[in-house]
Amino acid sequence: MNAAAFMENKYRPIGVFDSGLGGLTVVKELLAHLPQEDIVFFGDTGRVPYGGRSRETIVEYAKDDVAFLMRHNVKAIVIACNTADSAARNTLTATYDLPIVGVVEPAAKKAAAITKNGRIGVIGTKATVESRAYERTVAGIDPALQVFSVACPLLVPLVEEGRFRRGDPVVDNVLSDYLAPLRAEGIDTLILGCTHYPLLYDSIAALLPETNLICSGPASTEALIGTLRARGLLNDSGKPGSIRYYVSDAPRRFAENGGKFIGREIRGSVELAVPYELKND
Amino acid sequence: MNAAAFMENKYRPIGVFDSGLGGLTVVKELLAHLPQEDIVFFGDTGRVPYGGRSRETIVEYAKDDVAFLMRHNVKAIVIACNTADSAARNTLTATYDLPIVGVVEPAAKKAAAITKNGRIGVIGTKATVESRAYERTVAGIDPALQVFSVACPLLVPLVEEGRFRRGDPVVDNVLSDYLAPLRAEGIDTLILGCTHYPLLYDSIAALLPETNLICSGPASTEALIGTLRARGLLNDSGKPGSIRYYVSDAPRRFAENGGKFIGREIRGSVELAVPYELKND
Repeated sequence: MNAAAFMENKYRPIGVFDSGLGGLTVVKELLAHLPQEDIVFFGDTGRVPYGGRSRETIVEYAKDDVAFLMRHNVKAIVIACNTADSAARNTLTATYDLPIVGVVEPAAKKAAAITKNGRIGVIGTKATVESRAYERTVAGIDPALQVFSVACPLLVPLVEEGRFRRGDPVVDNVLSDYLAPLRAEGIDTLILGCTHYPLLYDSIAALLPETNLICSGPASTEALIGTLRARGLLNDSGKPGSIRYYVSDAPRRFAENGGKFIGREIRGSVELAVPYELKND
Repeated sequence: MNAAAFMENKYRPIGVFDSGLGGLTVVKELLAHLPQEDIVFFGDTGRVPYGGRSRETIVEYAKDDVAFLMRHNVKAIVIACNTADSAARNTLTATYDLPIVGVVEPAAKKAAAITKNGRIGVIGTKATVESRAYERTVAGIDPALQVFSVACPLLVPLVEEGRFRRGDPVVDNVLSDYLAPLRAEGIDTLILGCTHYPLLYDSIAALLPETNLICSGPASTEALIGTLRARGLLNDSGKPGSIRYYVSDAPRRFAENGGKFIGREIRGSVELAVPYELKND
């Protein structure tokens, strides 16, 4: 047992992972609402994006990500990636005996609570939409609610290339195509089911001005706070927390590009960490 | 030594690899011009795309890809990926004692031969452009030639989503932005430095009607034929060759989507093969 294992549970860090950068929109909310917590973030930039991969591969990758965070003696895990949460949540919760908070269930609960007409839209990666995780979760809350989901594979590359601003003709064109079937279904609530999409919030709001938009970050953070409080795991030291970032490729690029997701410059260390090893090395 | 190792050199298959699907535009040319050759193709769909990753990671991934092909007793390797060729060519040629034909040098030679005004444009992934492989290669052919290169990270996702046709407003808009600086430089020759880009040929030609467009596939195939002929390695059996595809994720999706790159339905087997193993398995 190493020294860290003697640390009282509530003073241990929270582990957060994503396939790459998008999860930083969740970190942004964690920093705002849980400023006293220490955070260890892992972004699998060496294998990003997960959204077009098979369920089996996403599960394997997510297992690697969590195994890495576990080595940092975390008290809870946040799956800050809709694709990973949709595919791997059951495997992860069956494997690990610590609180694991995702993004799908918290957003689904918020949508179910807020919809007036019972028609909820979801946009996400191919893997998230094909998993039907939102459909299953919403049905578990209230079987009378209807979910309409659309895979939007171009949105992540557009956001990563900085093309997310309202009025960008490419963004508006691509978004209009993706949102048209949801508009036709008369949804009154839309889940932005990918942690990249909050950057598109203004562009989406301009196209769907009457629709409630639900983002992963605030929903997930609220769920995490509830879970930690219930288990006596909230850090009450009164001291500001620290954050350490680990990525599996190109840490400098992460430090440069992460700012637009987190809403401020990346502070804290960014280190290269490849938790999976290549066989021929 | 297995049975295959006794096979005469010229009857052994050609190994071709790419990060994913794009390399099939090279396979298309190989099938057209070397119909008697057996081909083993590997697409690293479990870790695609390579184009935004660091040089170090691309080299590691390319080493895995070639190690997999070597297990199939190939007589030559085709690097059907500009990103992998730009980053890993030197490492691979230093490691393996068999003909390795890429895409950068053949396309650079064609461009150097065809340009009238000595101003050559290159479009490619971030990694290809940042490597400056085309600049170095063209300078090695004729230092008087000038190369202007532009990274076009949105083109691969657009092609993969089927948005490549001439007249698609999103494609035209994105392409116009990327090509504007090359147009301003007065290039008369443009290397489509990514094996996805041949699908955009008509859209690019419409925007640059006076410019020579050079694709990886024909250039690379020509170079391969020359190399095989010089070494007495051309298969002269007179019998039609076979093709086997291996991918590291989602073989069914590869079989479904590969057709648009190869210009006809994928024939031959498509199998899952993960040549790298995860440490925690």
